[in-house]
Amino acid sequence: MTLDAVLSRIDDTLPEAVDRLMALLRIPSISTDPAYAADCARAADWLVEDLKSLGFAARSASTPGHPMVVAHGGEGGRHVLFYGHYDVQPVDPLELWDRPPFEPELQETQKGRVIRARGASDDKGQLMTFIEACRAWKTVHGKLPGKLTIFLEGEEESGSPSLIPFLRENRAELSASLALICDTGLYEDRVPAISTQLRGLAKSEFTIHAASRDLHSGAYGGLARNPLHVMAQLLADLHDATGGVTVPGFYDDVDELPDTLRQQWQGLAFNHAAYLGDVGLSIPAGEQDRTPLEMLWSRPTAEVNGMWGGYNGAGFKTVLPAEAHAKVSFRLVSRQDPAKVLQSFRKWAEARIPADCRITWHDGIEGSPASVMSIADPAFESARAALSEEWGRPAVFVGEGGSIPIAGYFKTELGMDAMLVGFAKDDDQIHSPNEKYDVESFHKGIRSWARILARLM
Amino acid sequence: MTLDAVLSRIDDTLPEAVDRLMALLRIPSISTDPAYAADCARAADWLVEDLKSLGFAARSASTPGHPMVVAHGGEGGRHVLFYGHYDVQPVDPLELWDRPPFEPELQETQKGRVIRARGASDDKGQLMTFIEACRAWKTVHGKLPGKLTIFLEGEEESGSPSLIPFLRENRAELSASLALICDTGLYEDRVPAISTQLRGLAKSEFTIHAASRDLHSGAYGGLARNPLHVMAQLLADLHDATGGVTVPGFYDDVDELPDTLRQQWQGLAFNHAAYLGDVGLSIPAGEQDRTPLEMLWSRPTAEVNGMWGGYNGAGFKTVLPAEAHAKVSFRLVSRQDPAKVLQSFRKWAEARIPADCRITWHDGIEGSPASVMSIADPAFESARAALSEEWGRPAVFVGEGGSIPIAGYFKTELGMDAMLVGFAKDDDQIHSPNEKYDVESFHKGIRSWARILARLM
Repeated sequence: MTLDAVLSRIDDTLPEAVDRLMALLRIPSISTDPAYAADCARAADWLVEDLKSLGFAARSASTPGHPMVVAHGGEGGRHVLFYGHYDVQPVDPLELWDRPPFEPELQETQKGRVIRARGASDDKGQLMTFIEACRAWKTVHGKLPGKLTIFLEGEEESGSPSLIPFLRENRAELSASLALICDTGLYEDRVPAISTQLRGLAKSEFTIHAASRDLHSGAYGGLARNPLHVMAQLLADLHDATGGVTVPGFYDDVDELPDTLRQQWQGLAFNHAAYLGDVGLSIPAGEQDRTPLEMLWSRPTAEVNGMWGGYNGAGFKTVLPAEAHAKVSFRLVSRQDPAKVLQSFRKWAEARIPADCRITWHDGIEGSPASVMSIADPAFESARAALSEEWGRPAVFVGEGGSIPIAGYFKTELGMDAMLVGFAKDDDQIHSPNEKYDVESFHKGIRSWARILARLM
Repeated sequence: MTLDAVLSRIDDTLPEAVDRLMALLRIPSISTDPAYAADCARAADWLVEDLKSLGFAARSASTPGHPMVVAHGGEGGRHVLFYGHYDVQPVDPLELWDRPPFEPELQETQKGRVIRARGASDDKGQLMTFIEACRAWKTVHGKLPGKLTIFLEGEEESGSPSLIPFLRENRAELSASLALICDTGLYEDRVPAISTQLRGLAKSEFTIHAASRDLHSGAYGGLARNPLHVMAQLLADLHDATGGVTVPGFYDDVDELPDTLRQQWQGLAFNHAAYLGDVGLSIPAGEQDRTPLEMLWSRPTAEVNGMWGGYNGAGFKTVLPAEAHAKVSFRLVSRQDPAKVLQSFRKWAEARIPADCRITWHDGIEGSPASVMSIADPAFESARAALSEEWGRPAVFVGEGGSIPIAGYFKTELGMDAMLVGFAKDDDQIHSPNEKYDVESFHKGIRSWARILARLM
């Protein structure tokens, strides 16, 4: 019944936990704006002090950017590392906030109580769920549940420039058997979720060159090559009639979804009509032989993120431009290699343009591969059972359509898988004005981690 | 032998004719810059005075913009109207000029003597060829060769905003049996040319709308419609594999080239490799079953003049934008109706986009039709014979890939065909620094008009 004692402690001390979160939320740790550098350092120091009070050996480690918080504590059991980030997004446009973004407030809403402030959900509220679970455990048991490393970043919202060097310099210290990341959300409001696969990303910007200068369409139109036509044809040819990507070998390293996940995902009854309807669309646009959830979570994509060329000002200019430009990105899954995908794309594109045109490529062939966690690791089933118990609904393994780079870096730099568990809701308005975190997310999030730690360690 | 007397007079008085042109070139009549409005008026007045000295009843007619010069003189014969424009292009970048653009100078070059100044070729030198021919005729014969109207515009380089209203208000006064326009060039340096057909123009700017806001490609990529893909496909589909335009009915009102013109054009031995090679290209890009000259002069086109959407700044943004934009223009030939072409294009485009996308159109369905002159009018063969005689090379009927709106307006507003004869050379650098007009162009241009008038009137 020791877990029950921890859970009771969590329930009894929730107001104090909320107060602590509010104290952290009052520090405007906006990482992208140098004006807030001292505040970022202050947030790191606040966390170091709090972790020290729980018995962690904690330090604020300086980097060329904002400091990392690294803390070690406990012993025995499975050594896990917890990751979160204490920096927050900028707050503009400030006039759209109902209250000052760094003066957090508990508010009653029709859907329940919320904590309103910048960073409440992304990611201060989420990272504090884990720390509060440790605190309750420590109070009840007199010690932490097992060997824990806590690693908190201060540059997640500004591209994590110091992260990879820091991981490399502190590889031994930061390596554990599994990383826990709390920066994701629930599935459909009250269904707990563990993200087990994240798509990777490869990017390509290029220019198609035709004539040596802009031409007048009266003097040259019909005879001279228009690179906008070449670009349009190239980008149109990137997909076949059923939505598949036509670059040779693109699907070579794409695995089919394991049956267990396929069944689970079918059980999610994803309402794609509502998902698309929210943004004014109605027709799934991707591979027509795939379900909407597969399109989002487990299938690779090629998307044009920008294309431009010729005249785009007011009025008209009957120009045949010398150049056309595009930015194309690929979401990657399974074992797709970013370099291989980009090289195939380049070769494919260069073979398709007319002989008197040429392509220049404006970036390298780097990218981040997909992260696919070994759900055979019993930690995943343990966490699923713990989450299901806490939320009274079966927890689900989900995919993430986007890339969460840290999960990939933990794998490539430190050799450990990551388990992504989070309690954010779709309406938390992260990165937007009036960000909030439900008190329910915070409370049940703390309880969830206590349950997970009890099973995991 | 009266024509010979006129030609001798032209030869004998060439230095004085050059001096008069230089006087006109010293007036900086830049129409697009309001700072030069008084200079435009001064140029018009200079021309009025000069025409009066030849016996014309001439006036400077005010408009909301710069004045028109209208002059009537002579009697008998066929009533023709001559058109030119006294305004010139701006001169920037000034630092690229070898000498002040409004201080004309006679220069010796390897290719012969040239008059160097802004407007020397476009169009002051050209319009003066006609006036000097009239002067020589008047001196020799004591009268003009026949009933002549001279109509000189001062807004050609700034979009001719006053032109159509002026033509409509003065329809009776300006109507003649044929318009002569001197604002074009020789074909290949010393081959005189008469432009008998000019392509028309229709323009369309539009936006394809997909989602109600920009989407993140991680959260939506693969499922949500990307309007850049829709746009690329649409623009790619605008042409078939052989370069033809796919819009239904596009070629309905396109006539085949008359055999006489086809034979003449074949005789021109147009060097498309050199024409394209000058701008770094080598492969004719248009309809593959047409000759390069047909592609340029007698076939309609659809050209994308601008396309844009998504992110085009530095770095990357993995966005699925809400919108994609394009500007498309059509060069028209024969009896193609701009409104009909634009309506077919709209219908075609709207039928091709996914049901959850829509297109908005940003302009009307106006445009200018092609101008095709009735070369059955004996004036054309007369002028051809006159030009051939003067230049010692058979004059050719050519097409113009671009639109010269005035020719169309004379047809639509005044019901008269236009014959375009000019003596500019490809290296005259019109609209650019160091514009020049060959003394040979000026001299033989004057003689050409004398010969044409002798046969025409």
